Amino acid sequence: MTVDDARTPAQEPSTRPGGDGGPRPIGWHKGYLTGSRPDLRVPVRRVRLTDGRDVTLYDTSGPYTDPTVTTDVRRGLPPLRQDWITARGDTEEYAGRPRRPEDDGLRTAAGRGPHLAGPGPEGPRRPRRSRDGSPVTQLTHARRGEITAEMEFAAVREDVSPETVREEIAAGRAVLPANVNHPESEPMVIGKRFLVKVNANIGNSAVTSSVEEEVEKMTWATRWGADTVMDLSTGRDVHTTREWVLRNSPVPIGTVPLYQALEKTGGRAEELTWEIYRDTVIEQAEQGVDYMTVHAGVLLRHVPLTARRKTGIVSRGGSIMAAWCLAHHQESFLYEHFEELCEILAAYDVTFSLGDGLRPGSVADANDEAQFAELRTLGELNRVAKAHGVQTMIEGPGHVPMHKIKENVDLQQEICEDAPFYTLGPLTTDVAPGYDHITSGIGAAMIAWWGTAMLCYVTPKEHLGLPDRDDVKTGVITYKIAAHAADLAKGHPGAQEWDDALSDARFEFRWEDQFNLALDPDTARAFHDETLPAEPAKTAHFCSMCGPKFCSMKISHDITERFGAGAEGTTAEEAAEGMLRKSREFAAGGNRVYLPIAD
Amino acid sequence: MTVDDARTPAQEPSTRPGGDGGPRPIGWHKGYLTGSRPDLRVPVRRVRLTDGRDVTLYDTSGPYTDPTVTTDVRRGLPPLRQDWITARGDTEEYAGRPRRPEDDGLRTAAGRGPHLAGPGPEGPRRPRRSRDGSPVTQLTHARRGEITAEMEFAAVREDVSPETVREEIAAGRAVLPANVNHPESEPMVIGKRFLVKVNANIGNSAVTSSVEEEVEKMTWATRWGADTVMDLSTGRDVHTTREWVLRNSPVPIGTVPLYQALEKTGGRAEELTWEIYRDTVIEQAEQGVDYMTVHAGVLLRHVPLTARRKTGIVSRGGSIMAAWCLAHHQESFLYEHFEELCEILAAYDVTFSLGDGLRPGSVADANDEAQFAELRTLGELNRVAKAHGVQTMIEGPGHVPMHKIKENVDLQQEICEDAPFYTLGPLTTDVAPGYDHITSGIGAAMIAWWGTAMLCYVTPKEHLGLPDRDDVKTGVITYKIAAHAADLAKGHPGAQEWDDALSDARFEFRWEDQFNLALDPDTARAFHDETLPAEPAKTAHFCSMCGPKFCSMKISHDITERFGAGAEGTTAEEAAEGMLRKSREFAAGGNRVYLPIAD
Repeated sequence: MTVDDARTPAQEPSTRPGGDGGPRPIGWHKGYLTGSRPDLRVPVRRVRLTDGRDVTLYDTSGPYTDPTVTTDVRRGLPPLRQDWITARGDTEEYAGRPRRPEDDGLRTAAGRGPHLAGPGPEGPRRPRRSRDGSPVTQLTHARRGEITAEMEFAAVREDVSPETVREEIAAGRAVLPANVNHPESEPMVIGKRFLVKVNANIGNSAVTSSVEEEVEKMTWATRWGADTVMDLSTGRDVHTTREWVLRNSPVPIGTVPLYQALEKTGGRAEELTWEIYRDTVIEQAEQGVDYMTVHAGVLLRHVPLTARRKTGIVSRGGSIMAAWCLAHHQESFLYEHFEELCEILAAYDVTFSLGDGLRPGSVADANDEAQFAELRTLGELNRVAKAHGVQTMIEGPGHVPMHKIKENVDLQQEICEDAPFYTLGPLTTDVAPGYDHITSGIGAAMIAWWGTAMLCYVTPKEHLGLPDRDDVKTGVITYKIAAHAADLAKGHPGAQEWDDALSDARFEFRWEDQFNLALDPDTARAFHDETLPAEPAKTAHFCSMCGPKFCSMKISHDITERFGAGAEGTTAEEAAEGMLRKSREFAAGGNRVYLPIAD
Repeated sequence: MTVDDARTPAQEPSTRPGGDGGPRPIGWHKGYLTGSRPDLRVPVRRVRLTDGRDVTLYDTSGPYTDPTVTTDVRRGLPPLRQDWITARGDTEEYAGRPRRPEDDGLRTAAGRGPHLAGPGPEGPRRPRRSRDGSPVTQLTHARRGEITAEMEFAAVREDVSPETVREEIAAGRAVLPANVNHPESEPMVIGKRFLVKVNANIGNSAVTSSVEEEVEKMTWATRWGADTVMDLSTGRDVHTTREWVLRNSPVPIGTVPLYQALEKTGGRAEELTWEIYRDTVIEQAEQGVDYMTVHAGVLLRHVPLTARRKTGIVSRGGSIMAAWCLAHHQESFLYEHFEELCEILAAYDVTFSLGDGLRPGSVADANDEAQFAELRTLGELNRVAKAHGVQTMIEGPGHVPMHKIKENVDLQQEICEDAPFYTLGPLTTDVAPGYDHITSGIGAAMIAWWGTAMLCYVTPKEHLGLPDRDDVKTGVITYKIAAHAADLAKGHPGAQEWDDALSDARFEFRWEDQFNLALDPDTARAFHDETLPAEPAKTAHFCSMCGPKFCSMKISHDITERFGAGAEGTTAEEAAEGMLRKSREFAAGGNRVYLPIAD
């Protein structure tokens, strides 16, 4: 692997595309690690420390943070994976499904304004799919023993061998969501053996928000570290919004096709049909959606199990399917047509995210019979999907009090044969609306430590409203904390190094390094500046909490400095002797514990 | 127990004393539960639901939220416990230690302005102490089988029997911090068998902040649920600040006397003596400090164990004592004079909080030999303190990755014979300065579930600066979440009821009840109003996240309503039959899943 840095720190790029007042320093610069071939350039963040060393961190922000790349939201990102996909020779272009007005929710025009700009960046595209209908998935390649370029790319990001990635995917313990129609995405892998990933949800709704805002939220979320983004748009312009998001997204995009299918029925669940649903899945697969939440585990017989719950069914998809099952008194069309669905997904390499439509919506309902009955069905569907060569994740709760979290993840891992668990939170209490990023961040860290592969973020607006830009950032940062805390607890190689680098900077009063290594350098710097705004304070040998006299870090540092006990290779006894010797020197030197501040 | 409500919701009081634009609705009103005697009135928060029922919650806000009480910061709070203390007959008034200029850091006047207003509310007071030098502590009473008024008060708050409180205190598994010179405080109990408590730190420093700000922060912190407050002031006016805080505080106040003692030496650790320290402890005990952090476990022989740490010694008290030990090359004067210290604390009923001066300051240093060596010393000191009748808590870390938390609390409980554990966080990663309320909230919830009795909050400014009012609120709310999540996980009676009440309100679209039951009603309401500001939206049968068509709560509610499967006492089979019957009615009724919004 070779190293290829985009530029020196002196030329640092803007934090995000457009609208932010132009370039400004962000504490890190874009770098690339090159794999076994020149077109395999893996992005990283490099934090240049004041002593000249670099700390290398995982980067999800895409070409937007590379000042040598010119991005244009109207043209979309460069199709990074296009040649790899084409070279495999198992897919072909075709005419694709014709675009229909109802794709953008325009079936009933009454009371609605014109829909937003065009079909998407650069107009209509010709989609790809499997040449002969057989699976073209990363799972299929992995099983054949083939290490794809995508697998190597992900391996370099994770600092593991490509063979490890292949093995985990082949075993169904990991997924690499990479629709052949989303060549813009930078490959990443989701599995418990790898770094814990974070998903951010975006999406307009019938109530508010626009296409531009959703694209903006996507780039903003990845800027702060979102590994994937789900577009949960439900209002009009859903097709167009998704097209713009996909063409501009450097991370895999997930959706819940059921939402759009329901739009096509004018919102009447009982009018949903397998045909409408299948058409929507194909529509989205052709656009390039990388993974789809499918609530095929909500069976007719499960619905009565929810009737005496505290909060019934809280998953949108789950409640739509429950309503359909009840209205028709038939088994779910998703369950009945699951094998056909597998064949479609396999032809585009869309990854299943088997939805937990019956997840608990309150801690009172956690780990109940409804939830676990559905989980057993998901275990069955997981096996079917794998038999069809489709990559599969399993979605998880929801609201779960701390003492029930481990049971939950252990059971999922057992029933679903270690398929990656993808959990929403879980929220560990219901009493703090407005702070559910925190109630759920607690549960997220725990469940990730115990085996969840990807965490779906929760923002402060959960249960109350739609997240704005600040909420998206708060949600992502909170979940990056949970994910990283879990990486540390799991002993992931590399995770500890980041903490160590920051702790070293803290102990050595290298404030700028401390800020730049922070998950959110802007906030760390701003908080410090509130108390001690003057520039010299950033190099002062005391902390802003305690003032010059009381800073314990400073006292402790003085001890280490003066008594020399911190040298490598010193035994405790030698250190003690050294201390005594130094102690006498210390007394002789006037017993001054504190260095002058100007030092 | 009888019930005595201060007023109806229509006359709700202001959220906090002064400076906030006057009274406004806060979603709850003050109530009182009366114990076995008329002067034993225990405050509670009552949330009046829209259906007329009341939900009763624990209240820490003191008389400030009772509109029938006139408070005046210059006069201090009414001395609630005065008659109880006097009636026990084991204490007496005495002249007290004379006030000295250096108490307020005025030894060196050069470059300093005049100190702030007077000696405190209503001028000098005559302190109380043990009549004959024997212990007057709640522990001593509990061991004698006496249930004090304070114990009963705390029992009513916890909804347990007074005998349970007495038993836990007698066994050393709980403390009831209640200095005889702080009669204003409302008794509360700290122990793993009770609700998890939260401490908020306030305190000015040499760099910034004032007396008024600290009193304001104290009332603000208790308004949001802080169970105790530590005044960590270190600048000038420390004596005066503490006096104002104590006279106005409805919760126990903790301090670290070492900070003030060091001020008296002009900040020179090596000039500290037992005499200066003892004098400071008596000064603070006479003022009414309820618990004191004492770093007596930092021994000379422990210091070399920290020399090769990533972040040395990060506790201020720990680093001061380490510096003293090294400068003199003698054993800690706190350790050497510990028994004398016990006698002083026992004479005022000051509770020990045995400080963990060697707690880790980075996840790399967690659970190391230095930390556990000190813990073993704390176990020894815990036994000495108990032998002297002094109530004792043990302080804990710090920075600990998730997989090392349980080992930490288990060892503390074993070594310290189940003495209440009082932990700072712990922070589960070092990489997120600016968000350490969250990195530590995760660890706090876990450690509390596993046995910590009180959590010391961490604000977003940790490591970066001094918390302001918003930071104090964010820190308290985050830690109330962690504490409550732990109460739920521990199965504390009553904890689940709060979640259930809120989840019921959520499921039934009672938005006002949902806001009023929230840990922070203001934020919940404000977030909802951002998306749907119109008043009718608060009673609308859909959520602001999804819009009218997609709200899963609504769909699920419709299912419960229409299919009647939610009735109490219905078996799953009956429910299924009912569903089929209702399903036919549903079809006959036009298959309408969604009720009109106006419903």
